[in-house]
Amino acid sequence: MNLESELKGITVLSLEQAVSAPYCSMLLVESGARVIKVEPNSGDFARGYDSGADGESAIFAWLNRGKESICLDLNNSDDILLIKKILKKVDIFLNNVAPGVLDRKGLSLDLIRKLNSKIITCSISGYGSKGSARERKAYDFLIQGEVGLCSVTGTEKNPSRVGISIADISTGLTAFSGILRALIQRTQTNCGVDIKLSMFDVLSEWMNMPLISHRYLGGAPKRMALSHSFVSPYGVFETKDRKKILLSIQNNREWQIFCLKILRYSELINDPKFANNVERYRNRNELDSIIATVFKEVPKDTLVRQLTEVKIAFSNLNTVEDLAEHELLQSKDLNFGSAKISVADLPLPNRLSCAKTVPDLNQQEKSIRKEFGKD
Amino acid sequence: MNLESELKGITVLSLEQAVSAPYCSMLLVESGARVIKVEPNSGDFARGYDSGADGESAIFAWLNRGKESICLDLNNSDDILLIKKILKKVDIFLNNVAPGVLDRKGLSLDLIRKLNSKIITCSISGYGSKGSARERKAYDFLIQGEVGLCSVTGTEKNPSRVGISIADISTGLTAFSGILRALIQRTQTNCGVDIKLSMFDVLSEWMNMPLISHRYLGGAPKRMALSHSFVSPYGVFETKDRKKILLSIQNNREWQIFCLKILRYSELINDPKFANNVERYRNRNELDSIIATVFKEVPKDTLVRQLTEVKIAFSNLNTVEDLAEHELLQSKDLNFGSAKISVADLPLPNRLSCAKTVPDLNQQEKSIRKEFGKD
Repeated sequence: MNLESELKGITVLSLEQAVSAPYCSMLLVESGARVIKVEPNSGDFARGYDSGADGESAIFAWLNRGKESICLDLNNSDDILLIKKILKKVDIFLNNVAPGVLDRKGLSLDLIRKLNSKIITCSISGYGSKGSARERKAYDFLIQGEVGLCSVTGTEKNPSRVGISIADISTGLTAFSGILRALIQRTQTNCGVDIKLSMFDVLSEWMNMPLISHRYLGGAPKRMALSHSFVSPYGVFETKDRKKILLSIQNNREWQIFCLKILRYSELINDPKFANNVERYRNRNELDSIIATVFKEVPKDTLVRQLTEVKIAFSNLNTVEDLAEHELLQSKDLNFGSAKISVADLPLPNRLSCAKTVPDLNQQEKSIRKEFGKD
Repeated sequence: MNLESELKGITVLSLEQAVSAPYCSMLLVESGARVIKVEPNSGDFARGYDSGADGESAIFAWLNRGKESICLDLNNSDDILLIKKILKKVDIFLNNVAPGVLDRKGLSLDLIRKLNSKIITCSISGYGSKGSARERKAYDFLIQGEVGLCSVTGTEKNPSRVGISIADISTGLTAFSGILRALIQRTQTNCGVDIKLSMFDVLSEWMNMPLISHRYLGGAPKRMALSHSFVSPYGVFETKDRKKILLSIQNNREWQIFCLKILRYSELINDPKFANNVERYRNRNELDSIIATVFKEVPKDTLVRQLTEVKIAFSNLNTVEDLAEHELLQSKDLNFGSAKISVADLPLPNRLSCAKTVPDLNQQEKSIRKEFGKD
């Protein structure tokens, strides 16, 4: 009763580059689908992101394990013909080429639909395909800026980008969910579905909390680094052994337990300066310094034990190095040529998956041409 | 050939609170499913997040439109009996109650499976259900800290949290995709699926780029606010009218066009200090000041037109207010009692959806009891 290879038998043709579409098709691979990745002769430029896998890109490995690679030139009519032959037979056509490219190369969605009435197409863009937005280039960081995400992240003085490719990954996962929805719909209608997804739309929807705050709650949230713009205590504190701990007290019940069992300072409970969250936030400087004074006398291990016992929520302010050694981290080993790359595994791995091998550029050309090249 | 109500006929029982599971079931509603939201008599505590919708929570409205609400008490044996009757008939059981609660209330997954062999269950936790991790409380911010996300976000001095609930939302979307996978698998096997998902696992996988950087590329990325730890030019620049523009030059071809057409400073192309990204990054202070000098003589509108013409990627460093007025923002109006709330719509909306009304607490009690209460 686990997820197994639920997409076994499903074939995907993907004209993909960089992160968003490759992330989506990696999720399809890991659900059991077969993915044929079309690259230009120079390769998906993500192959050059780094050289951490014995000279090849380790980030490319993460995004492309388990796929088949073939180089096809969209300016070569024979290669376009082969793409059309493949499109007749596959279930899904994914792409994140710039809007307009498919039309110019003779691969319009209308034509694809005529070739295959049951195909599911999914086109990922930065800003959609309407009007001037269609021409705008999009990189992850630029989308973060455009939707206002940087304006709610960072310190009071310095808006900051989120340190992971949140626009790319969220869009890839949304595309994956859209394709799964379309597969379900197809079993009912026996017809294909055209999905058009923009990174701007995905991340704008994720901005609903700040948007609602701006529209209905008196203003967008302020940037407060690790603090909160209206909750206290909330943030990072240092322990005796100079380690860091994140704390977030969300209600009065937790506050009382915290005073009694952790601070061991029962008078605070009845202090009107800290009677509720509004008062605690107003007097947060005094409160933070009280907590800091207590915490700096206790080693982190002891404090963690105490907080765990009384069920006060906390966490570690971990570094990436800490995550790499974390006891809960689930890893998966990938093979790229002779290199081995260990990545964090998917949260819902497919127990039957053997998507471990990363394709060299054009590695499956012969078998793909043989399979689909006939008339 | 759009996504319509592909989950029509699917019924979901959700024992949910806060953000992660409600976000997942909102996505199910918006795909056509019927969602029965079980709340304690005091209500999902997210009803108290704010009072922006005429005294009710606007954030709750975003997360819960289109659902049915019923209050049930897990300590009341009659209510547990009703839950069991409902579980016999629904397709999906979603929950994000603390690990162990279901077992203690007589609703173990084993028992649910006996009641309904075809049901899909999805349990969301902070850290999974094994060992001591099971007892750890998890709020969005704490998960961000635990996986190291804050350590790669913010300024050199100040690690920062991401200003949206990235752990909750990414987990809700992943749960949605897992349920869709399970629905597809069920059509093949005629058996249900048990899905267990942790926020820690979801966000750890999203950390793969920094993880790979740490393991294979010489170290985790540094925090650089809006700058990049190895790309230049990259970041924010001010225009003549004191507006801000984000710029990201990703290769030498773009760099040359940028020098010729935007900076109008062709000598730079042959300057060895800026010959490639490595050199540009090494001399980024000098380069940034050259760009700043040019940009501060040009009004933003003019610069945007020039950058668009030569296809150099840029974006705006928008505020949340800017997003609210953005010409590309797709909105959806929700009704909560007499209040109207406008939210950013989903990136793949269902064209047939009328999930616009937010349930009052316990609003559908009578009809749900009538429908499921019989033996």
